Amino acid sequence: MNRRYGLALIGILTSSSALATEPVQPIEPYQASNQAKVELGKKLYFDPRLSKSGFISCNSCHNLSMGGTDNMPTSIGHNWALGPINAPTVLNSSLNLAQFWDGRAKDLQEQAGGPIANPKEMGFSHSLAVNVLETIPGYKQAFQQVYTNDRIGIDQVTDAIAAFEETLVTPNAPFDQFLKGDESAISDTAKAGYARFKSVGCTACHNGQALGGNSFQKMGLVKPYKTDNAAAGLSAVTGKEIDRFKFKVPTLRNVELTYPYFHDGAVWSLEEAVDVMAELQLGQKLKQQEIGEIVAFLKTLTGDQPNFRLPQLPPSTNDTPRPDPG
Amino acid sequence: MNRRYGLALIGILTSSSALATEPVQPIEPYQASNQAKVELGKKLYFDPRLSKSGFISCNSCHNLSMGGTDNMPTSIGHNWALGPINAPTVLNSSLNLAQFWDGRAKDLQEQAGGPIANPKEMGFSHSLAVNVLETIPGYKQAFQQVYTNDRIGIDQVTDAIAAFEETLVTPNAPFDQFLKGDESAISDTAKAGYARFKSVGCTACHNGQALGGNSFQKMGLVKPYKTDNAAAGLSAVTGKEIDRFKFKVPTLRNVELTYPYFHDGAVWSLEEAVDVMAELQLGQKLKQQEIGEIVAFLKTLTGDQPNFRLPQLPPSTNDTPRPDPG
Repeated sequence: MNRRYGLALIGILTSSSALATEPVQPIEPYQASNQAKVELGKKLYFDPRLSKSGFISCNSCHNLSMGGTDNMPTSIGHNWALGPINAPTVLNSSLNLAQFWDGRAKDLQEQAGGPIANPKEMGFSHSLAVNVLETIPGYKQAFQQVYTNDRIGIDQVTDAIAAFEETLVTPNAPFDQFLKGDESAISDTAKAGYARFKSVGCTACHNGQALGGNSFQKMGLVKPYKTDNAAAGLSAVTGKEIDRFKFKVPTLRNVELTYPYFHDGAVWSLEEAVDVMAELQLGQKLKQQEIGEIVAFLKTLTGDQPNFRLPQLPPSTNDTPRPDPG
Repeated sequence: MNRRYGLALIGILTSSSALATEPVQPIEPYQASNQAKVELGKKLYFDPRLSKSGFISCNSCHNLSMGGTDNMPTSIGHNWALGPINAPTVLNSSLNLAQFWDGRAKDLQEQAGGPIANPKEMGFSHSLAVNVLETIPGYKQAFQQVYTNDRIGIDQVTDAIAAFEETLVTPNAPFDQFLKGDESAISDTAKAGYARFKSVGCTACHNGQALGGNSFQKMGLVKPYKTDNAAAGLSAVTGKEIDRFKFKVPTLRNVELTYPYFHDGAVWSLEEAVDVMAELQLGQKLKQQEIGEIVAFLKTLTGDQPNFRLPQLPPSTNDTPRPDPG
């Protein structure tokens, strides 16, 4: 072994070994196994005909031009209804242990059916949505190709949407490059922020590839969180009082893009979010400089955003049920 | 000159000479002279922060996944208001002699300012929209690069949107390939439909590259058109009674995608639209077969749809005014 190769190997081992002890891991690019299904799901994701009005698509509230969110406290839905809770980002959502803030959907497929039938979101029903798709030859062909069935089913619709959503990981964030050994990928301030993020204890909940999404935690663990929002959290699913006000820990990936923050979307700045979290969850009052360092670190978590051509939707026909805004 | 070259030349001359006498001309691809301006305009076109609610963008009602329309009779706007008139397609709108159904905007730039400030559309104001953009570093830099000004102005916002919209032409429709000499590009039924389209007199108004968009005509020229829609048409702009119920002739390019039809969006099928037009505008009652032929022709007018990567919008900052759904 020549010296140059040996040094490089030591570098890799050191970096790899350092990586293994970090509470945060890099996100890896996703390789879709069924590209036809992904393309079908992408069309469905952008298609407002899955809503009663013909105006609202998955992308309306999980906007892939805006970090997979709508950047509003709670979403606007059918008939301009305001939703009960902040729309979480769809980016990296395949890494979540469950879907929705209260985890009531076990996976992306189960989640995808929720908004379609929610009167305050897309305001439709599963059977009506399928009826629309059945009349559109471009969809009929695509479903037949992917599922080799004669009739479209809602399970196929949500399966295809989930397959598309699984592609929406955001690798190559500056912080991931740093984790992989590129010391110059993030600033010294961000490095100090990451050290503090760990020492303060944020990584107790915000860890793993997604820096969150892998546990439920009480909002207001040390001090109570005050909100007008009525969401009960995990207790609405388990029926257990001990789970009241427990929510799925949100991912911090792309957090610079996913404002406003918390399940009620009440906080708009990362500085305030860090300040509140440290005090309410960890009982620590951070200094402005410390907050600034952590925010600098959080801004290194923005990875590669969705990168694909705007899908073209197959046109309706004379048989297609018409949109109903009322 | 060898025989082969000579025959090819005769073919070109015949085709070119035939083309010159046709009432319809092919659409040519658009070459943008200022790509940075187009990219900026594309972002603005997709950005819901140009609306009061932060929910509605240009693309909401002129959806580039759906033929540049929303496929609704009239659009859903701020606070779920229903608009007064059908949203015309943005595709090939640069070929229109003026913008809006009544032509009240002289060009795309003037048009782009309308919806932003319309209380039933984006519900914002020009100055508030500019205030939002001013706080977003990604936009500040882009405007400085394109316009070399320190302050963003609404004229720059609409100029950039118009520059993007100018790229939205749809060349290479099967009918264009036919016009350029490829006899196999459309079916015999479509060819018969085109012949009838001309002989019936449709080309009196639906002519040129866009098959429309280049004149104002009275809706219900021979027989009155019955509608609940209150739009007065060109007379609202000119103040002349003779212009009452005159509307800009809509383009027939991509008409298979731009349902429902007419300024009130009252008719959903191409068959009915052709039937009504022939009777009301030309005083002719067409047979079902004739209508079918013309519809087959109309479906050959679907050209290359917008083909670009979903834009990524620069994030807001702590200084950015917040969206207001109320």
